[in-house]
Amino acid sequence: MARITSFTTTDVRFPTSRTLDGSDAMNPDPDYSAAYLVIGTDAGDGHTGHGFAFTIGRGNDVQVAAIDLLGPHLLGRDLDSVLGDMGATWRSLVHDSQLRWLGPEKGVMHMAVSAAVNALWDLKAKRAGLPLWRLLARMSPEELVALVDFRYLTDALTPEEALELLRRAEPGRAQRIDRLLAEGYPAYTTTPGWLGYSDDKLVRLSRAAVADGFTQIKLKVGADLDHDVRRMRLVREAVGPEIRVAVDANQRWDVGTAVEWINALAPFDPWWVEEPTSPDDVLGHAAIRRSVAPVKVATGEHVPNRVVFKQMLQAGALDVLQIDAARVAGVNENIAILLLAAKFGVPVCPHAGGVGLCELVRHLSLFDYAAVSADIGDRVIEYVDHLHENFLDPATVRGGSYTAPLMPGFSAQMTDSALREFAYPHGPAWAPAPGAPAPSATAAAKEHP
Amino acid sequence: MARITSFTTTDVRFPTSRTLDGSDAMNPDPDYSAAYLVIGTDAGDGHTGHGFAFTIGRGNDVQVAAIDLLGPHLLGRDLDSVLGDMGATWRSLVHDSQLRWLGPEKGVMHMAVSAAVNALWDLKAKRAGLPLWRLLARMSPEELVALVDFRYLTDALTPEEALELLRRAEPGRAQRIDRLLAEGYPAYTTTPGWLGYSDDKLVRLSRAAVADGFTQIKLKVGADLDHDVRRMRLVREAVGPEIRVAVDANQRWDVGTAVEWINALAPFDPWWVEEPTSPDDVLGHAAIRRSVAPVKVATGEHVPNRVVFKQMLQAGALDVLQIDAARVAGVNENIAILLLAAKFGVPVCPHAGGVGLCELVRHLSLFDYAAVSADIGDRVIEYVDHLHENFLDPATVRGGSYTAPLMPGFSAQMTDSALREFAYPHGPAWAPAPGAPAPSATAAAKEHP
Repeated sequence: MARITSFTTTDVRFPTSRTLDGSDAMNPDPDYSAAYLVIGTDAGDGHTGHGFAFTIGRGNDVQVAAIDLLGPHLLGRDLDSVLGDMGATWRSLVHDSQLRWLGPEKGVMHMAVSAAVNALWDLKAKRAGLPLWRLLARMSPEELVALVDFRYLTDALTPEEALELLRRAEPGRAQRIDRLLAEGYPAYTTTPGWLGYSDDKLVRLSRAAVADGFTQIKLKVGADLDHDVRRMRLVREAVGPEIRVAVDANQRWDVGTAVEWINALAPFDPWWVEEPTSPDDVLGHAAIRRSVAPVKVATGEHVPNRVVFKQMLQAGALDVLQIDAARVAGVNENIAILLLAAKFGVPVCPHAGGVGLCELVRHLSLFDYAAVSADIGDRVIEYVDHLHENFLDPATVRGGSYTAPLMPGFSAQMTDSALREFAYPHGPAWAPAPGAPAPSATAAAKEHP
Repeated sequence: MARITSFTTTDVRFPTSRTLDGSDAMNPDPDYSAAYLVIGTDAGDGHTGHGFAFTIGRGNDVQVAAIDLLGPHLLGRDLDSVLGDMGATWRSLVHDSQLRWLGPEKGVMHMAVSAAVNALWDLKAKRAGLPLWRLLARMSPEELVALVDFRYLTDALTPEEALELLRRAEPGRAQRIDRLLAEGYPAYTTTPGWLGYSDDKLVRLSRAAVADGFTQIKLKVGADLDHDVRRMRLVREAVGPEIRVAVDANQRWDVGTAVEWINALAPFDPWWVEEPTSPDDVLGHAAIRRSVAPVKVATGEHVPNRVVFKQMLQAGALDVLQIDAARVAGVNENIAILLLAAKFGVPVCPHAGGVGLCELVRHLSLFDYAAVSADIGDRVIEYVDHLHENFLDPATVRGGSYTAPLMPGFSAQMTDSALREFAYPHGPAWAPAPGAPAPSATAAAKEHP
């Protein structure tokens, strides 16, 4: 009988604020970071499970400490029982009554559960010799439904309805998998549009994205209206009328401001507006959506859990639902959200970028197409082209589409050299220049402008 | 010029799980805990500011670490500028862009802000020589509005509307303060109704509560329907028809189950049902409320922030709004919530109990009556009669009403002996019996049943 024998966390941070990669209206200077977890066993098969929570710098140490709280739930446990009933395992991690108080089911503690759940799925898929999306896509509807905690969902989706949805999508699974292997999954790119980039860089990268085969790009907005109108015009002129240009306000606006701002950008035909206001504001998103149609409303990367997604769908607040691989409690909760979206007929276009989010979330979209929604239509996965070199099985995009990952696991594993180089605060990447303050002091001194 | 010179945190835990004080359907074995903060200055006046986040055991160390992340925002800063513009200070703590990612505005990081904000208010009130509620109640409408961050609120409440509300409540402030000093503020008690108590203890404590002058008591429900029906009948028989008996499900139910369960308890005339489902489920609470009237729906102790409270009010989801002193980001955000409740005409009946929550929240209700809602009608503050002995200015209830606190500050300060005794894991209260495992191992081994 094999057991879980190690549960090891690392604080990994990339100094992305030095180049303003990732800058937007709410996050002017992120240092993309991962609270990183490796789960080891005594199975003797050489496999380890990797998972992480994504943060943007300060506080990544606290995120690591929150993951550590989950170790006692897994250390010493029988591997087959943990991996064999991932529904029960998920519930044991999410419903620890004392830890639940720290959310409940939101923020630091919920993201910690995400890291542990995803690490277990990485391990399970490696042991099965399959990339995660294929492991999930060969599970029966009954097995998939057993992964989902329907608590708080049954007024919108019952287990029976979920089963029915999955059964309806069973015919054609094999053909859809073949199509994914041959053609990949459509992507869009956010690389050109970071708020801290110059106009020249914006135009140059937008043209390059189109030349690379992308048919949708995304622009960060929300800091200054005149600035946004100018940048939106430049991009529209650079890419022509056929390319979809989404805008992303990163929660910057109140409801009224959102409507005014989007209307001012409307002449340049934005495809969707993302995070126009607080991710908690279901009714606010619904009000904005009613006022800005035909511009679509998208959100999700900061939606804390399935309960808020449920309401977004019930209230008709979204045209596009954006799952995040590591903010809700991992694979299981994302399956719940994919099922909800399928029930309500809303397309899922995942959030990615960050550290490793492209690597993870492609598995969920591929699984969704293969076994849940069976729809690929207007769906696209976000792509941002940095930090992939730090992963063993990096996301790759060709001709504007993600290629289907083939390596066993959930693609969450960083390279050993990345873990050494970017360990915080003692990795070489964080070594201070002679005479400069230590990195922790520098980081702490940065405040929101 | 005085500066903030120290920012000291302590992990304080009370072994309440040994007696099942605080046990309910979701929290069978809480160890009531405080992630405790003391802010010191070089002003030479002997005053320190005290604040805390309340947790129920495991994870309190992570909560402490999250509070520590805020130290660099305050250490070394000019005291007059920090305390003189508490609106700006609040925003600087909540909108640190990197730390905000960990919520945003929810969970561990937001509770950490609560501890820091409340500690600063404790310090400010001590320096003014006033209990917090009186300090707030002498501020002008303009000063109060400047404390509130209206981001994400303006579709429901604008600064101008808030000003108008506060101005309308200005006449009579002095008389209402006199009434509070003379009569206190009505309380209800949860002491009899913990789920882990025997029927005998439940009946005995319910009768004792009525004898002590309480006109409302509360019963934990939600684990087993037959059990709840029996306990509700016993209590109703023990206290008679005139005493209000509220029930509290602590988020145990889905929407459909909540409606069925409450209808089964309806013959015993429950006054309100508290936390029938997920605190994130605005639409769910609204649906439950429509189905169980005239039983009232109450929630709020786990509502993460003002944005969700705003929607609870917009959706008509609540008959009773329950603020918590230390889950949203402290005094400033609670003022925003009191203003929202006043705008929508919904009574505020605070959550208390826990560690120190009774001590804190009475200040907010007294301030609300004096300067915001000017209404006391059906309003009651929760009271639970344990752990008060650990505070310098403990909550006191006479004849079923909280007495008005008179000591300068926010009543957040624990006694030195409590801080020594209950420091975790090395305080004497946590010393293992000979041969028993160390407390950290014991704590980690407890799982949700």
